[in-house]
Amino acid sequence: MDNLGLVLLSETVGTALLLLLGTGVVANVVLAKTKGFGGGFLMINFGWGLAVFAGVLVSGYSGAQLNPAVTIGLVVNGLVQGDEVPWAAYGVAVVGQLLGAFIGAVLAWLTYKQHFDAEEDPAAKLGTFSTGPGIRSYGWNLVTEIIATFVLVFVILSFGLNGADEALTGPLSALAVGFTVVVIGASLGGPTGYAINPARDLAPRIAHAVLPIAGKGDSDWGYAWVPVVGPLIGGALAGALAPVLLASGLA
Amino acid sequence: MDNLGLVLLSETVGTALLLLLGTGVVANVVLAKTKGFGGGFLMINFGWGLAVFAGVLVSGYSGAQLNPAVTIGLVVNGLVQGDEVPWAAYGVAVVGQLLGAFIGAVLAWLTYKQHFDAEEDPAAKLGTFSTGPGIRSYGWNLVTEIIATFVLVFVILSFGLNGADEALTGPLSALAVGFTVVVIGASLGGPTGYAINPARDLAPRIAHAVLPIAGKGDSDWGYAWVPVVGPLIGGALAGALAPVLLASGLA
Amino acid sequence: MDNLGLVLLSETVGTALLLLLGTGVVANVVLAKTKGFGGGFLMINFGWGLAVFAGVLVSGYSGAQLNPAVTIGLVVNGLVQGDEVPWAAYGVAVVGQLLGAFIGAVLAWLTYKQHFDAEEDPAAKLGTFSTGPGIRSYGWNLVTEIIATFVLVFVILSFGLNGADEALTGPLSALAVGFTVVVIGASLGGPTGYAINPARDLAPRIAHAVLPIAGKGDSDWGYAWVPVVGPLIGGALAGALAPVLLASGLA
Amino acid sequence: MDNLGLVLLSETVGTALLLLLGTGVVANVVLAKTKGFGGGFLMINFGWGLAVFAGVLVSGYSGAQLNPAVTIGLVVNGLVQGDEVPWAAYGVAVVGQLLGAFIGAVLAWLTYKQHFDAEEDPAAKLGTFSTGPGIRSYGWNLVTEIIATFVLVFVILSFGLNGADEALTGPLSALAVGFTVVVIGASLGGPTGYAINPARDLAPRIAHAVLPIAGKGDSDWGYAWVPVVGPLIGGALAGALAPVLLASGLA
Repeated sequence: MDNLGLVLLSETVGTALLLLLGTGVVANVVLAKTKGFGGGFLMINFGWGLAVFAGVLVSGYSGAQLNPAVTIGLVVNGLVQGDEVPWAAYGVAVVGQLLGAFIGAVLAWLTYKQHFDAEEDPAAKLGTFSTGPGIRSYGWNLVTEIIATFVLVFVILSFGLNGADEALTGPLSALAVGFTVVVIGASLGGPTGYAINPARDLAPRIAHAVLPIAGKGDSDWGYAWVPVVGPLIGGALAGALAPVLLASGLA
Repeated sequence: MDNLGLVLLSETVGTALLLLLGTGVVANVVLAKTKGFGGGFLMINFGWGLAVFAGVLVSGYSGAQLNPAVTIGLVVNGLVQGDEVPWAAYGVAVVGQLLGAFIGAVLAWLTYKQHFDAEEDPAAKLGTFSTGPGIRSYGWNLVTEIIATFVLVFVILSFGLNGADEALTGPLSALAVGFTVVVIGASLGGPTGYAINPARDLAPRIAHAVLPIAGKGDSDWGYAWVPVVGPLIGGALAGALAPVLLASGLA
Repeated sequence: MDNLGLVLLSETVGTALLLLLGTGVVANVVLAKTKGFGGGFLMINFGWGLAVFAGVLVSGYSGAQLNPAVTIGLVVNGLVQGDEVPWAAYGVAVVGQLLGAFIGAVLAWLTYKQHFDAEEDPAAKLGTFSTGPGIRSYGWNLVTEIIATFVLVFVILSFGLNGADEALTGPLSALAVGFTVVVIGASLGGPTGYAINPARDLAPRIAHAVLPIAGKGDSDWGYAWVPVVGPLIGGALAGALAPVLLASGLA
Repeated sequence: MDNLGLVLLSETVGTALLLLLGTGVVANVVLAKTKGFGGGFLMINFGWGLAVFAGVLVSGYSGAQLNPAVTIGLVVNGLVQGDEVPWAAYGVAVVGQLLGAFIGAVLAWLTYKQHFDAEEDPAAKLGTFSTGPGIRSYGWNLVTEIIATFVLVFVILSFGLNGADEALTGPLSALAVGFTVVVIGASLGGPTGYAINPARDLAPRIAHAVLPIAGKGDSDWGYAWVPVVGPLIGGALAGALAPVLLASGLA
């Protein structure tokens, strides 16, 4: 991770692929006249999980963080363990994540352009881009996002007990992260639609706001802070607690 | 497994993650107003199977037993083969499993707090925490749990023919155990909802009894012994018969 | 594979596990009052595929053939390539496969005993044990079974171009065979329910005939030869053609 | 890849298996009286994804390209990086892909012969062989196919940054490609049914035109160029941009 330009590129490309595939599967399940219409939540879970898998595969240079909550987890983990934190690389990574997430959402919109046009429900359109809660309650929605993101970052940190960012690449590790996201979606995604990634939610919401999407409604900015703050808290908690909770790291 | 404190920690953390994700997927499928409502039994099977996968990943220090039926299988297997049984470590592991299962169920309840509140059917609430039979008959329900747990522990013991507890960690082994649980659920989970783990059923049932869950019914204590006794018998049988039935171990 | 007794044991145990899990998933999807009732064909595909995965894991000693069509494929493959064929071991393996398949079907029946009793449709009961065609026509049903089994044995033979029977064990190979069976079911299982294994169909049909199953109908012996003869032809063809069709083996 | 005859054989066999299993799963889900009727889009996604997995397993000699869009991606990638392009081998590979795709479609038709006969809707029959858009618009349909194929070839090229054709074989790589196709289908397959492979669409369309399929309609030749041209553009773009976008390759 010496070259900041390559870190930016790696995170941008990986997160763009993640968002293209992730928002794509929701579009397929919810928008009118698609082949996958009504395909069910398990299809969404596999779509997002394998989207992460694919994103990790192409983002090896920067350790495939793809998620500011993962990056903050690595930062806090490094601070707690007394490691030197590569601040510049991590900062650049987050920029790449936001940029990539925006690009990925735009590409998904282009992929499904006619189906956005044909869809009559504005909520379905927004739901393709960003998450929203089943039952709105900022406090409890925040709790859900914190717990779900904690699980994600905690499992990732368990892969490499010393310097996890190296350990996350390669097909098998990519698959392990992907399946972890499948189960987080299936198991913890029920209340809020599992953002578990500030970039995944915020950048597509901006895309929703600025793109000329036919018949779109508002972008629900009132909720937008929850899938940013919740995952950041959850990721930071995982980074802080992993050194205490992972017995293998203590041995 | 020298440090009993770390064994306790490892099993507590791994089993908490297992139960959070496992009871979470049931909550997602059965509770009102979730994103995954009505997601189907295959989604539950993948949820529980990959919950085990994730739990194994974070519980490497203690061999990721996560289940008193696995532990009793290792004990009996050790006794049959004349190995020295690490009684203290195994005893501590079971304490950690029960503790972790309780914690995981509480976390799942918090994750789905509003959906428990919104759900009107008490049976759906209990079904999220603990198993119950499709057709109640203690004898046959016991048979089902014995057979299903036998399969689980027998497959696990086949991984490492000499000292299986070391062999259960790492992404590939975690995936193998996870997929084994997917198929046990899909194939043998029909009659009883596949507890196959006393801690998985008993500790969440206690959580159901003590937590202030709105509109909950009784905790069905009359059935509670079946998913404890059945898995223990199945696990012990697997531990006793594995040395006889696994040809590779005899070669 | 020197010890014939261990070959018998290995194939018996592996095929019993395969049939327990395979007929179990069908029981779960089709029988009354199960948790997985109406779970869909993809659930059946994953159930049978991962049943093979589990069976392979516990049957390493004998190369996890688990299927007379695989065994005949190995025989023909060996003859074509001029290898020495271990006739006794292969003969013993087939005996173990039939024995194991019977045992597995009985165990599945015990697991779902009450649901067999509660089920009113005799066809659902037979369908749990053995396959039957969507549209009956012995000739075309045979064609389907030949093609589907050819695919299974051909893919398996591709794993180890020289002496495939060694190569089929270990978690990754077990997973590869399991996923191959998932896709064969999803893709080629539509017309006949994919026996692709004489032992898988014949032994459970015998079990259906002899077990005291409440309210069962006849065992459809008129069709019984198709899922025996078809897979044997398909497996033999794969054994004969693999050395011609696998470019890697010719290089 | 020295022997052109073996390259032809390898690509023919691999692509035949891919198409047999891929068109098979669609037949299972859409044709009358099959076991998998109405199995859903996720089943189709797993069917096609694992069809690729199986095809890759048996096509190691030629690097398992199985797709002219992959081959053109390798060509462009080689040109951009200044590598020597094995023109003859690649040309022969594409011939094998077209030949194999035709053979696979014929085999799938034979596998489901009676169900094609029993099916009354001509559109379902054509839909088994070739793709068609949910909303017809050549321009946007092309955009979708370009993006989806770009993802496929880009991910494949990321596997082996120097000479990808060697890296695509072996169970784990086969699985990685297979899962990539699962997610492309689930996420980007909604608008056009994801041809992402000119051979996969064109050769079965020819098969549909020439086979004596009872009650078939026309072969929709007006659309036929989209799933040829789109994937070729997408694959070429991926080949050109991979050296720019993959940070690991630049490091």
